[in-house]
Amino acid sequence: MSEAAYVAVDWGTSSFRLWLVDQAGNILRERRSHEGMMAAGKLGFPTVLQSHLQAVGAADGLPVIVCGMAGARQGWVEAGYVDTPAPLASILKHAVPVPGQDRDIRILPGIAQRDPKAPDVMRGEETQLLGALGLDAAGDAAVCMPGTHSKWVRARGATVERFATFMTGELFDVVSRETILSHAVTGAGETEDIDAFKSAVMAAFETPAFAANLLFQVRSGQLLYGGQPASAREKISGTLIGLELAAGLAGDVPRTGITLVASGRLQMLYQLAFDTVAVPIRTIGAEDAVRRGLSMAAESIWSV
Amino acid sequence: MSEAAYVAVDWGTSSFRLWLVDQAGNILRERRSHEGMMAAGKLGFPTVLQSHLQAVGAADGLPVIVCGMAGARQGWVEAGYVDTPAPLASILKHAVPVPGQDRDIRILPGIAQRDPKAPDVMRGEETQLLGALGLDAAGDAAVCMPGTHSKWVRARGATVERFATFMTGELFDVVSRETILSHAVTGAGETEDIDAFKSAVMAAFETPAFAANLLFQVRSGQLLYGGQPASAREKISGTLIGLELAAGLAGDVPRTGITLVASGRLQMLYQLAFDTVAVPIRTIGAEDAVRRGLSMAAESIWSV
Repeated sequence: MSEAAYVAVDWGTSSFRLWLVDQAGNILRERRSHEGMMAAGKLGFPTVLQSHLQAVGAADGLPVIVCGMAGARQGWVEAGYVDTPAPLASILKHAVPVPGQDRDIRILPGIAQRDPKAPDVMRGEETQLLGALGLDAAGDAAVCMPGTHSKWVRARGATVERFATFMTGELFDVVSRETILSHAVTGAGETEDIDAFKSAVMAAFETPAFAANLLFQVRSGQLLYGGQPASAREKISGTLIGLELAAGLAGDVPRTGITLVASGRLQMLYQLAFDTVAVPIRTIGAEDAVRRGLSMAAESIWSV
Repeated sequence: MSEAAYVAVDWGTSSFRLWLVDQAGNILRERRSHEGMMAAGKLGFPTVLQSHLQAVGAADGLPVIVCGMAGARQGWVEAGYVDTPAPLASILKHAVPVPGQDRDIRILPGIAQRDPKAPDVMRGEETQLLGALGLDAAGDAAVCMPGTHSKWVRARGATVERFATFMTGELFDVVSRETILSHAVTGAGETEDIDAFKSAVMAAFETPAFAANLLFQVRSGQLLYGGQPASAREKISGTLIGLELAAGLAGDVPRTGITLVASGRLQMLYQLAFDTVAVPIRTIGAEDAVRRGLSMAAESIWSV
């Protein structure tokens, strides 16, 4: 096994991922847990990090680069924001050291859009963007980063010009768990209903104003015509993603199409959704992107 | 005190209202409780009704007319639906007697729109419509009935042609209680921010596709610029109501404008919202409307 050069951490609201990385950028060891900002706020950030560093056998002086909610005001150490238009290189320059630690630990800042008409913030996605676009990006890019709070980013070269956050994932979560629609989705298992998903995407994409009505139709349709819980779940998901696409694709889309940064089930759903509205995409794995971004930061800061 | 002629009950999902009414339609006594369908399903519908009948001193043989969720499948006795196009008079004809009771108790049916492309149901609002429009209505009407599940109804004369349900009230509830925005509204008291409400209505009305982004701005705006919890609450409310209006007003609006059937705070908010988008309305109190509808049903069934 080659020697570890640094540790990279993606510390989200509800998830924690850590990689032990060698000088060539290879992953030597990996840890995943649910000790995100919420849990770590109670357990203590140093305690959580230390337990994972021990588990991967990180040597004493090994530096740690962190992105995500650990840098939020309610996080470990506030890492602030770089304002738009935000050159991705400036993210690297504004990494904030965590004081009073035995090793060098730095947290990357987020990006803020200080526009009173469209205020917005991201924290963690800037590192994914760094990994996805790179510091030498040329031309215009439109990037869709699905999640609890989906981000749509317009970049010019390696600079984030504007972005918008959509509460799509969180809305899906509360609508399917906490509203009358929860009855309609109860019992939805592994099976999927791709047709239900695609027609819901199209309906919301074409008539976004009707989103709150299309959602109710999940219940009224089941009441009047029956239907499977999986179809109901896919209709809710398709409606909310279709609504997001209607906004994200409202302006001019660059000729190069959309760059989708996503992994797993979200990647599959968004690929289907873009396919439904006939918009070409290229896909980059979200986890690869964040790791690459963290590596670029580590290399820039410590010349590892 | 004049003699009671019948009892009228509006039995919703989470609320119960009962009126003791004389032959001239005057209210002799009134009861309100939270024993809606959910609570009554556990306590037993006959038990709940009996306790309130006793409380108002209803004589033994006095008939009871009921509308609302007591007639749902999960209610007391399923009262079915009248299908669109639904003459309001047919609601009266399809009242369903509750079997095995000491007195004559009848539950009014709901209305169903059996259109696979826009399935919809209402239960309770049909009685409000009856009271608001009457059996002799002439001309076209567009009726907005705000609530947990807002209904927008197109009527021709005294016939319900089409309608659409929007989950506006329920979305407001879960978004402000169960999402990240709950932090932004915590501590919002009695004070109101009418300007925040109106500008949120206008933003969502003009760009409905951005609804999930406008919601997130409640948080990002507060993070970057501060702001009161009441403003955050009004922004959520305005965004969701503006989204509803964008859909409800998307087609041609009758020259007579919109008939708003609402009471209390919802009436105030929707009046403000319609005012913001410069659409004329006439307002009918929701509670008056349902009582009038129940009285029309009682008079038609029992010739009281």
